[in-house]
Formats: sequence, structure tokens, C-alpha cells
Amino acid sequence: MNAVLLVSYDGTHFSGYQRQAKGERTVQGTLERTAREIFGVPTLVSASGRTDAGVHAAGQVCMLSCETTVPPRKLRECFNALLPPDLKVLASAEAPAAFDVTRSAKKKTYVYRAYASSCDLPLYSRYAARLPARVDAGRMRVAARLLEGEHDFAAFSATGSSAKTSVRTVYAIEIAEQTANGHTMYEISVTGNGFLYNMVRILAGELFAVGAGKETSFLQQALETGSRSLLARTMPACGLTLQHVDYGFPLFEIDKE
Amino acid sequence: MNAVLLVSYDGTHFSGYQRQAKGERTVQGTLERTAREIFGVPTLVSASGRTDAGVHAAGQVCMLSCETTVPPRKLRECFNALLPPDLKVLASAEAPAAFDVTRSAKKKTYVYRAYASSCDLPLYSRYAARLPARVDAGRMRVAARLLEGEHDFAAFSATGSSAKTSVRTVYAIEIAEQTANGHTMYEISVTGNGFLYNMVRILAGELFAVGAGKETSFLQQALETGSRSLLARTMPACGLTLQHVDYGFPLFEIDKE
Repeated sequence: MNAVLLVSYDGTHFSGYQRQAKGERTVQGTLERTAREIFGVPTLVSASGRTDAGVHAAGQVCMLSCETTVPPRKLRECFNALLPPDLKVLASAEAPAAFDVTRSAKKKTYVYRAYASSCDLPLYSRYAARLPARVDAGRMRVAARLLEGEHDFAAFSATGSSAKTSVRTVYAIEIAEQTANGHTMYEISVTGNGFLYNMVRILAGELFAVGAGKETSFLQQALETGSRSLLARTMPACGLTLQHVDYGFPLFEIDKE
Repeated sequence: MNAVLLVSYDGTHFSGYQRQAKGERTVQGTLERTAREIFGVPTLVSASGRTDAGVHAAGQVCMLSCETTVPPRKLRECFNALLPPDLKVLASAEAPAAFDVTRSAKKKTYVYRAYASSCDLPLYSRYAARLPARVDAGRMRVAARLLEGEHDFAAFSATGSSAKTSVRTVYAIEIAEQTANGHTMYEISVTGNGFLYNMVRILAGELFAVGAGKETSFLQQALETGSRSLLARTMPACGLTLQHVDYGFPLFEIDKE
């Protein structure tokens, strides 16, 4: 049977998703060690895509192949009994026929969070980056319109990206702003058909720069020329969460709670 | 000079506010060690009140006495340069004349957070407790009205409380409910003139029990009889945050960010 898992993790103490040779703590390594405990044989766990060190996931999708009499829906509980508190399986199901967890993904949504404060806030800094001062969310929304659609995002990729093409479609960028207890939190939600290496963190950095007053003309220029040098800041990993992977149909019956 | 500090901490890795003999990691111990580094002499740091192990603070108020030429507003930066990431000073100021950081406190607001899910959620569980299923916030709001006002809250106190009287005034209990990404988060904000040991965690447990269907008659009975045996559950520390201490006038000029 091929099983799919809906997985959430707090990325703070993981060296990213992908298993590493040196025995660092990774999401894949932890899932595979747990699968081996459950099924008694070495088990490969693949995912919709990698996430970097420190990046969180609310809804990563993983797949594994197993021979077991445990009903697919119950795999969740088997995993959760053995997994650490910062990595849990929210749902499990049998994978559809001919399902490829990486290539079948149609859309992904990432959320980037940052708060405005003149000093680090202990209760915010685990899941959000810090901006030195408030920014103009309206300006950011205008700039976001320039980035939506199909573009060559070469300028928005860290060097060392191995992708064959840097053309991606960004379906929507939403910007939310919420002030509570005297502090403002910004959330940038980006939905696209795929993302280049560091693309969301670079894009978030540019949107925050626009929010702080930078003129937007450089964005058009960056998309046209592909020149990374026009762009400044890659935001820290802690603010980034893989929110949702959309396969075009529901993979899990999530319990209504 | 007496200086006041507005302090925030993530309580996860602190054995509560109060310094302990055995050298456990505490908020007071960490602040006092830092004060000694800055001022060169042993310095006592007092607070509006203690918080238990695992309880967070968004706005604890602390006070210390020091001889220094550093302007009071700049003490914040001196502390933050030396403090760990999970404990920061958000603002500092000179204390008003005859100010007692503990006794001058007029009102305190605590927030208790819990989310409904059939399994632990890694991205929620640091700052919120888990409820097994959704609850009825409307029922909780009706029950909250019974607890507001001046009452003898003896039934809502853990044994071992050293308070002279168990009469307290609860000014307001607000209940907010927010659903995001398929999960519902509940926030109970309680403002009162003071709280008995574990009172907010016991009160939150009873309100969630009412939200899950428990009849409210026992609340009136508990207030009248003072019998702890009528009440069930003390909620876990991780869901509790000391949000604000109100002295009746502003202590800090918070930078508008």
C-alpha cells in the first residue's frame, strides 16, 4: 500500500526536511526512523518538496510504501505515538493510484510572518521575523500585483538553485496585517505552482522593503532582467511556514473538530 | 534610582518567575544575574507577581534599584544585549515616587489559549493547550458572566495557597474564538484585581468544561461553598500568558511602531 501523511512540524530544531548524511536531525530522517520502527523494514518517506532548515510546516504532504494490516486512517496514531512533540501526523490515508507526492502537487501556499518591533519579542520570534518598524501594507499589496502571474523569477532565487527553468506562476499574494497588544504582525500568503530556492523568503523581503518606502520600479526590472543584484534581503527561515499543498482533490478526510 | 522594566518571556524553559535555591533557571534569577553584570553589584529584581513554571508573559512588570548614569529608557538595551532570546525587556523607565511594583498593581489581565484538535499540533502547542474537540463559546460566555464580580474564589485555588483572603474581583472575562486552517483556537482573557494560586488555569478548565456541555449550576455552588471538589481540571501552564499589569497610569512610553 502507498500511504500519504499530512504532516506538521516546528522547524526550529530541524536541519530542514531532507535526510542528511551526517546524521543531523531532519524531518525526513525522523519520519523514516519512525516508519522503520512501525513496519520493521527500512522505509523511504518522500514529500511534496523540501523545506529548509528552520522552516515550519502546517500542512506538508508525505508518502511512503508499506505492508501492514493497520488501516490507513490509523497510521496517524501509530506515527504520533512515536514522533517527538515538534513533528506530528495530522491525518493519514491510502494514496490514490499512480500518485506522485512531488509531481502531482498542483499548488503550494507558503505564509511568511513578520512583526514590527524595536526589539525581539520572545513570544513572537519563534514563528516570525522582526521588522525594525511598521510598514505600509497598502504599498505591499500594490507591489504584490506586479509579482502575480507567470514570470521568470530567476532574480528571486538563491544562487545554487538546480531547477531547470525559473519560470513559475504565482496565483495569488495576500497580505494581512493585525495589531494586538501594541505590536503589528504581517502575514504574506503566497500561492504558486512551484517555488525556486529561497523564492518566498526573497519575495517577502522585497515586499517588506516596498512597505518601508522602496519604489516598486525595481520589481518589474528584476522580473525582466533576472538580475539578483537588484534585490536585497532574504528574510530569515523562522518566519516561513509551508501552509498547504493542493493536489486538485482532497487527499485526507480531516476530522471535523 | 528605582527603575521599572516591561518584561516578556517564553515560559517554556523557565522554572517560573521566582528565583530558586537549587539554581534552576528562573526569570528572576536570569534578570538578577544580568543586573549584576550591568551594575556590578548584587541587585534584587521584584515583579508584579510570580508566574508558575511554563507560564508566559507578554507584559510582566519588574522593578530594581540601581546606581547608574545610564538613562532609564536606555536600560532596556543594556539588558537585551545580555539576556537570552526567550526573555527580553520591551521598555524601561524610572519608577514613580513611592512605587511598589507588587502592591501598586491595580488590575492584571491573563490570557488562556487552547485549540481543538484530535492530535497535538506542533505549531500551536507551545503557547496553547489542546482540547479534544470543539466547544461552544456561547455557553462559555454565559458561564463567564457568573464568575465576574467580587466573589470568594476559594474553590478556584490550588491547595497550598498562602493568600490571606480568597475574595477577589474579576472585572471581565472575554472569550474569543478563531478558526484558521481547519483548527479552532479559543482565547479566554481574564482581568481581575488579583488571582489566587492556579486560579486562571482552574477557571479556564471549568469554562472549557461548560463549553463541552457541563451544566453551569456547579459554578454558583463552587462560589458559594468554596469546595474545590466540585471543580475538575487545572489546565496546563503552557496555555497561560500574563498579558498586562495595570497600575492606573502608564509606566512606560512605548515606542509607537
